[in-house]
Amino acid sequence: MWKETTGGVCAAKGFKAAGVHCGVKAGSSPEKNDLAMILSERECVAAATYTLNRVKAAPLYVTMEHLEDGVCRGIIANSGNANACCPLSHENAKAMCQFAAQATGLKAEDFVVASTGVIGQTINIQAIQSGVPGLAAALSENGSEQAERAIMTTDTVPKTAAVELELGGKTVTIGAIAKGSGMIHPNMGTMLAFITTDCDISQEMLEDALRQIVGRTFNRVTVDGDTSTNDMCVVLANGLAGNPLIEWKDENYHAFYEALEQVCRTLARKIAADGEGASRLITCTVHHARSEESAERLAKAVVGSSLVKAAMFGTDANWGRVLCAMGYSKAPFRPEYVDIKFASAAGEVEVCRQGDGLNFDEEKAKQVLSQDEVTIDVNLNEGGEQATCWGCDLTYDYVKINGDYRT
Amino acid sequence: MWKETTGGVCAAKGFKAAGVHCGVKAGSSPEKNDLAMILSERECVAAATYTLNRVKAAPLYVTMEHLEDGVCRGIIANSGNANACCPLSHENAKAMCQFAAQATGLKAEDFVVASTGVIGQTINIQAIQSGVPGLAAALSENGSEQAERAIMTTDTVPKTAAVELELGGKTVTIGAIAKGSGMIHPNMGTMLAFITTDCDISQEMLEDALRQIVGRTFNRVTVDGDTSTNDMCVVLANGLAGNPLIEWKDENYHAFYEALEQVCRTLARKIAADGEGASRLITCTVHHARSEESAERLAKAVVGSSLVKAAMFGTDANWGRVLCAMGYSKAPFRPEYVDIKFASAAGEVEVCRQGDGLNFDEEKAKQVLSQDEVTIDVNLNEGGEQATCWGCDLTYDYVKINGDYRT
Repeated sequence: MWKETTGGVCAAKGFKAAGVHCGVKAGSSPEKNDLAMILSERECVAAATYTLNRVKAAPLYVTMEHLEDGVCRGIIANSGNANACCPLSHENAKAMCQFAAQATGLKAEDFVVASTGVIGQTINIQAIQSGVPGLAAALSENGSEQAERAIMTTDTVPKTAAVELELGGKTVTIGAIAKGSGMIHPNMGTMLAFITTDCDISQEMLEDALRQIVGRTFNRVTVDGDTSTNDMCVVLANGLAGNPLIEWKDENYHAFYEALEQVCRTLARKIAADGEGASRLITCTVHHARSEESAERLAKAVVGSSLVKAAMFGTDANWGRVLCAMGYSKAPFRPEYVDIKFASAAGEVEVCRQGDGLNFDEEKAKQVLSQDEVTIDVNLNEGGEQATCWGCDLTYDYVKINGDYRT
Repeated sequence: MWKETTGGVCAAKGFKAAGVHCGVKAGSSPEKNDLAMILSERECVAAATYTLNRVKAAPLYVTMEHLEDGVCRGIIANSGNANACCPLSHENAKAMCQFAAQATGLKAEDFVVASTGVIGQTINIQAIQSGVPGLAAALSENGSEQAERAIMTTDTVPKTAAVELELGGKTVTIGAIAKGSGMIHPNMGTMLAFITTDCDISQEMLEDALRQIVGRTFNRVTVDGDTSTNDMCVVLANGLAGNPLIEWKDENYHAFYEALEQVCRTLARKIAADGEGASRLITCTVHHARSEESAERLAKAVVGSSLVKAAMFGTDANWGRVLCAMGYSKAPFRPEYVDIKFASAAGEVEVCRQGDGLNFDEEKAKQVLSQDEVTIDVNLNEGGEQATCWGCDLTYDYVKINGDYRT
């Protein structure tokens, strides 16, 4: 059983991190970090998932290449420019790894590289080159927050999580940082998430766990339905905890899996709650579905609906939009069996039973919907499966932020 | 060859229309019509397309039943309540046809019925019952605009179109009214569109033409990605023009098809331009695709992207979001072949060639994007097919309108 801890991406043994300002984006504040590094003191097995967007930014291709052997030592990442869709994007992603290698005495292939920001503008590679030596010099066991701040874009709060668990008498720790705000949508067009652990685990098992967990956490978040070109989730495991090596799906694997899922679920909820302009986190759980897949599809349609999102912003218990979104999700269900409730810290209010509207207390509903976290609870009354997806409301600020992001 | 004319849904011979206020929605202004009727002086062949939402409102099922024989005489429709997802919805939809029949001396089965408004609240059927006699008495050849106003919800302008053409020495006229603003999305979860014509055409040919044309016009409009439970497109043809009967795909069929397509395209553009809170019409044309289907899917993803829509609101030439939206559309294309231009009455600006960004004049781009109608022109450089989709920008007002629509 895991318990929460602190330290973010440096919580696990043998990991250091740093974040500095180097000026990737012209005119950016010197207060805003834009270059991050995470480094393990020894080689890690690594696994990653990538955006499903057909247009993938150059850093993703370079990372795939560098992870072909399943091992690496560290991560270099920048905000302020996506390094995507420019003639020199690929060379510049390679160069970032080269700079990191020079500053640390390692090889370029030892690094994963990630970028986030505007697409289609040439990245200021000189700024990165001049920033890397100072970045490497700043690496520290207390560097998680600085690194996190360096990958933030329109994020309003840093997103971090860490848990520890006992495996074979040893303490194993998993820590992470993530960024993500706009362009957050299911299917791993999601965000940047960097996860580190001192767990001793085979690359195969690590990859297997990550792929499944990402499907149930990050891929169930939606902010605006857009899927970015740049986003990835990477996990590095350096084995320093000294636990018995996890190489098949034994008890220790399942304990590790649960702990890693907790880290990813925590970050997923934080990303949804910090959706661009969001004023509240919206969770939709679909219960008693015939399959987890339909439940997920229905829950995603609900949290992804602009009309539901706008109603949640307006604390309007317009449950017809929930049923309507389910209807166009393409998942099979019987409208005439559906029950819907809204719930939050202020209580719950049932609004629809067996597909028909109930008379409910509008004042009470307003109170329920006015909380920071609101749950839309859907019961299909058909089977034994369920799924939860996360999103946020649609606000004036979303439009403001995205009406003029580039300039 | 068709030419534009006036008169809306009464432009064709033998059709009358009316719109009145009956108070469907409690507290609504007596100035706002909410009940409409369209009537042909003789029997029409009829065809209809319906929302693909799995949750379909009761009026759609009643309409399907009444059109099983392919003929009808008129349409009764209300705004202010969707008559969906309530225990009495089906009975009430039947009752609306019954009231229309009583007031006109016809049968309930002679009527198509449609509703638009909030889902899940019981419709005020007494208000409709008391309104119908006055509605029938008001039927007139000049009633198109009153009828149009009666089906508007958050629409800010009435939407109407009419064309006439010569077929076999006779003048054939096609006229229409439509409503649609929020919840507008491809696949006929679209809007209400009522089309009338005096063309003499078989039911089979009429249905065939309508289905194809809806696929290329209304189904290529998106406002917010939501697909309503209530929307339908109906065409009635009473044959009064006296043209040679169209019963197969001859020259006259093709001429009629083109004219009907023009009517539907005009309404589709008007619906997109009047998207909730919209400040401009966004057209995306994808050229030189390998198939019309991929071109359509790509163009829809572009006009449907919240990030593209917000950028258009902000007159920000953020073409990376265009390429990104194409990337997650699931249509096949080669990013490295793609050219992108923005165009409007103020000129055009090329922003991306072969997948890479170009240096362009930001001031000029702002001018181009500041017009009421902006085109995003994508060239895939792969094949000979193309498709055009329509949408609108995402504005503060969209959020405002939808944050508190129900109450």
